[in-house]
Amino acid sequence: MDRVITRLRQFRDDRDWKQFHNPKDLAVALSIEASELLEAFLWKAPDAADPEKVQEELADVLAYALLLSDAYGFDVEKIVLDKIERNEAKYPVVKAKGSAKKYTEL
Amino acid sequence: MDRVITRLRQFRDDRDWKQFHNPKDLAVALSIEASELLEAFLWKAPDAADPEKVQEELADVLAYALLLSDAYGFDVEKIVLDKIERNEAKYPVVKAKGSAKKYTEL
Amino acid sequence: MDRVITRLRQFRDDRDWKQFHNPKDLAVALSIEASELLEAFLWKAPDAADPEKVQEELADVLAYALLLSDAYGFDVEKIVLDKIERNEAKYPVVKAKGSAKKYTEL
Amino acid sequence: MDRVITRLRQFRDDRDWKQFHNPKDLAVALSIEASELLEAFLWKAPDAADPEKVQEELADVLAYALLLSDAYGFDVEKIVLDKIERNEAKYPVVKAKGSAKKYTEL
Repeated sequence: MDRVITRLRQFRDDRDWKQFHNPKDLAVALSIEASELLEAFLWKAPDAADPEKVQEELADVLAYALLLSDAYGFDVEKIVLDKIERNEAKYPVVKAKGSAKKYTEL
Repeated sequence: MDRVITRLRQFRDDRDWKQFHNPKDLAVALSIEASELLEAFLWKAPDAADPEKVQEELADVLAYALLLSDAYGFDVEKIVLDKIERNEAKYPVVKAKGSAKKYTEL
Repeated sequence: MDRVITRLRQFRDDRDWKQFHNPKDLAVALSIEASELLEAFLWKAPDAADPEKVQEELADVLAYALLLSDAYGFDVEKIVLDKIERNEAKYPVVKAKGSAKKYTEL
Repeated sequence: MDRVITRLRQFRDDRDWKQFHNPKDLAVALSIEASELLEAFLWKAPDAADPEKVQEELADVLAYALLLSDAYGFDVEKIVLDKIERNEAKYPVVKAKGSAKKYTEL
């Protein structure tokens, strides 16, 4: 993802937008984009969203997630792999298999 | 990100969770995780979130974004780069520099 | 709703929380509560949420909506009635009947 | 709020929209509207949103909250008052005064 992050930084800096991109507003923006993505599914069957709209909104979600990650100096691949490890402890296969329950209810 | 996506798929399939992961519920889950991330910033100054909490919740956001992308067969790097290109047209430097306005108001 | 708003203000002031309740953080809190409400429906059929959980989270949504409304001096009943009127223009019965499309696509 | 709920039902039924208004999609719609409200605050100081935009989006949030409440047969005033009572136990004045911490951390 390094190439993508470099492009995102450049896009931001060309427009002098770093002044607006504090972590809190980046998290707000990410949450708004996640809702715009969700809107593609509103009043529809689970698989009936327009894939082009999904693609556009998901790209916005990813862009803000990468910018927020970059603001904290995280390595995106590493933090997801670390979280999977922690989730393996929270959701052991023997308990979680075939169940949609939250780990607090397993 | 291929290694990460492979691990996410494996984590899901070990638990037989694909049956729950229709695109709409993945988008709902992503939106919920984006809000949990936002909660790290609630009632706080823009830079005052706990970085460990941010890291954990951002990892969840990324995990669902990758799973949703995978459900549609998207290439995550490509869709973000494509969106940056479209945003370059929506937000020309000469108009957008130093402004936080939405493209519809520029 | 006057009695409810009075109780909400008193609850806040007893705890000296007005200092945290700026409009932006109230809107962030409202959005987080809306997501917690949504979590009651995650991975489930459209009608399969636990009504008690829905009730609790919906109450939180309403509480923040009322506090935010109060911060701006709005009359909650009036603003909803006004919005219905505007929506009647946006969604004329003859066009919108039986359609889940957004007004921009009708 | 009875008059408002009656108007909301009538608006919905005139358009034959009850078929779309299952509880899950109402919760999704509510969450999307809460994000549109939040967008009025994005990249801005805590008090710098446009009050007219806040009013419009808050009305949408309230409308869906009332429709969802109505779908479950809740009395909106009662559920908020009940929640305040439960919160009084979760956030005793002596512990919570002047603190923005979550009850789990008090």
